[in-house]
Amino acid sequence: MKARAYEFHNPVATVFGPNAAETLPQLVGNRKTVLVTFPEAEAIGITGRISKILGKSIIAIESETEPNPDIVGLARLYKKFWSDYRQCEVIVAVGGGSTLDTAKNLMVGTASGEYAELLNHLTSGSPFTPSQSKPLIAIPTTAGTGSEVTPWASVWDHSIKKKYSLHLKETWAEAAVVDPELMLTLPASVTLQSGLDALSHALESIWNVNANPISDTFAVSAAREMMKVLPELMGDLDNITLRSHASLAALKAGLAFSNTKTALAHSISYDMTLRHGLPHGIACSFTLPMVLKLAMGRVPERDKVLQQVFPCALDEAPVHLSRFLESLNVSTAFESYGVSEAESQEMIVEALQGARGKNFIGAARA
Amino acid sequence: MKARAYEFHNPVATVFGPNAAETLPQLVGNRKTVLVTFPEAEAIGITGRISKILGKSIIAIESETEPNPDIVGLARLYKKFWSDYRQCEVIVAVGGGSTLDTAKNLMVGTASGEYAELLNHLTSGSPFTPSQSKPLIAIPTTAGTGSEVTPWASVWDHSIKKKYSLHLKETWAEAAVVDPELMLTLPASVTLQSGLDALSHALESIWNVNANPISDTFAVSAAREMMKVLPELMGDLDNITLRSHASLAALKAGLAFSNTKTALAHSISYDMTLRHGLPHGIACSFTLPMVLKLAMGRVPERDKVLQQVFPCALDEAPVHLSRFLESLNVSTAFESYGVSEAESQEMIVEALQGARGKNFIGAARA
Repeated sequence: MKARAYEFHNPVATVFGPNAAETLPQLVGNRKTVLVTFPEAEAIGITGRISKILGKSIIAIESETEPNPDIVGLARLYKKFWSDYRQCEVIVAVGGGSTLDTAKNLMVGTASGEYAELLNHLTSGSPFTPSQSKPLIAIPTTAGTGSEVTPWASVWDHSIKKKYSLHLKETWAEAAVVDPELMLTLPASVTLQSGLDALSHALESIWNVNANPISDTFAVSAAREMMKVLPELMGDLDNITLRSHASLAALKAGLAFSNTKTALAHSISYDMTLRHGLPHGIACSFTLPMVLKLAMGRVPERDKVLQQVFPCALDEAPVHLSRFLESLNVSTAFESYGVSEAESQEMIVEALQGARGKNFIGAARA
Repeated sequence: MKARAYEFHNPVATVFGPNAAETLPQLVGNRKTVLVTFPEAEAIGITGRISKILGKSIIAIESETEPNPDIVGLARLYKKFWSDYRQCEVIVAVGGGSTLDTAKNLMVGTASGEYAELLNHLTSGSPFTPSQSKPLIAIPTTAGTGSEVTPWASVWDHSIKKKYSLHLKETWAEAAVVDPELMLTLPASVTLQSGLDALSHALESIWNVNANPISDTFAVSAAREMMKVLPELMGDLDNITLRSHASLAALKAGLAFSNTKTALAHSISYDMTLRHGLPHGIACSFTLPMVLKLAMGRVPERDKVLQQVFPCALDEAPVHLSRFLESLNVSTAFESYGVSEAESQEMIVEALQGARGKNFIGAARA
């Protein structure tokens, strides 16, 4: 058997650290900017801060984005964007994963200017080439999403409880600006959820059939740092140094899974969010100890990388990870979220068949 | 004082691991290719292997490249390239750092088709915008150069003992293909030199004013892996697994210093190569223990990162590093290379003033 060649490519220019947002004028240059953000951004001062930095570059502010963006709202926003903001030369998106994912949908223009064409691509898998596209500068306000350095966007059809993934070569951001100052206002709940989402990105990129030594380097570093910093941060939410470390760990986790995609824990999470309303960060992390147990012993080389994440023997790692989650008041039992044992087993079997589930190294024999 | 924002960006698509070269047909597509390589490449089977993989895509093979390419030879090759190979749609460069650096010079076209215009930019620092440019796919045959993932090319004027650095936004490779199979024929001397060059890239990117947490992640991983694998590889040159680990460590070191540039050890090396004929890999590594000693204690946060590289207390790291080099029969004393103590001190003072020397964290107070 021929040894396998690996690939790693991430074209996004990253700027990170306190005051990274101050570099926006250089990144934007003299391009006409549409600022895409979320409804609460104005009240918590984020819209004001970014508007002040970008000044007259901003031709419009669009804050009507939704959490877990649904195809109905997206279609409305898309039509408005491509008819009202034709002058737009760059999109600056500021928000959590849902806001950044919404912006990625706006980036790619259809010939008709209607979202239906893009939606058809998502639902049928038929090929899609944008008739034009706008560059994106992505500014996460949570330390978790990773969306700023990946080419994917989650799109939800809540009416039929289905989740799609937009993924085009045009949907990479041009630049990612990771500024922990913008995360200081995050409440405890969102801080926890996004930190655990990042931990899940890191671990899922390790127990992944697409893992490679570069993604591993990022993932091990990200997972170790997030497990160290998150408990400290939960006790000291205003600490800019801890916010900075968490945002960097989340960025590295994003770089890791930008080349592997996620795996089983995320595949399970979509149902937990759609059917049980669980926030994404909890939905994709409460199963991590179980998935780790399923991953161990499958591929010796993967075990070696997983071992680098944990300060204990790998055999003890699932218990270590459970205790870590429980210390943050996150239950690792399905029943805590209203899911019976029988239902959870069905859910896992189904999740293994999903696109992300098939990335799991244990998928073939789990 | 405002905290500082960091930047990391590396746009090169990387493919790595045994048989990575087999992916060339996908990378090249149906573009007309000029293969740039080195005089010995044919005899050792590299030209044949790449030609077989690329087949009819190749419209010409140019093997008249030189080690530490001089401006006279570059001017001749440049003129030939831009007059004879106008059809060329992509350059595939296969070789060590000198070959890849030569190819980077060829990438950027002057209005006149003469190298003199580009040379004027190098010598005077006057602005230069290529009138056209060709994309590059870079295939290193040594585990050391890192040139495949950096935008720089060293250019030498041996007549006046001066070294220039070409650096344009157009001189990033489109893709880097790191295939350890192509390194199996490397003799012990070049294996050692290139491995130490990579170690130097990793360490120099840590004791660097441009260091950042992403470059550090790559650098720490690269330095640790290269110090582990190089002694093993020197005793087992035909071992593809060890070649693979060394090539990956070198790639990571390249990714690290692609965003920081090098520092004092490299600045010293240019004189050692120009005036004393020392091969680059030795010239940039025999001073590492001394430079480490100068770096320690300057910046607490840099000390922390350096500590992650070594299995001993940081105080003992310079001795540890000296023993490592001496175990590979590389003397760490200037006098071993015919340089007196007085001359070496002058050389260090001068190197601190050089462009790369100024990147050293100890430059201000060394």
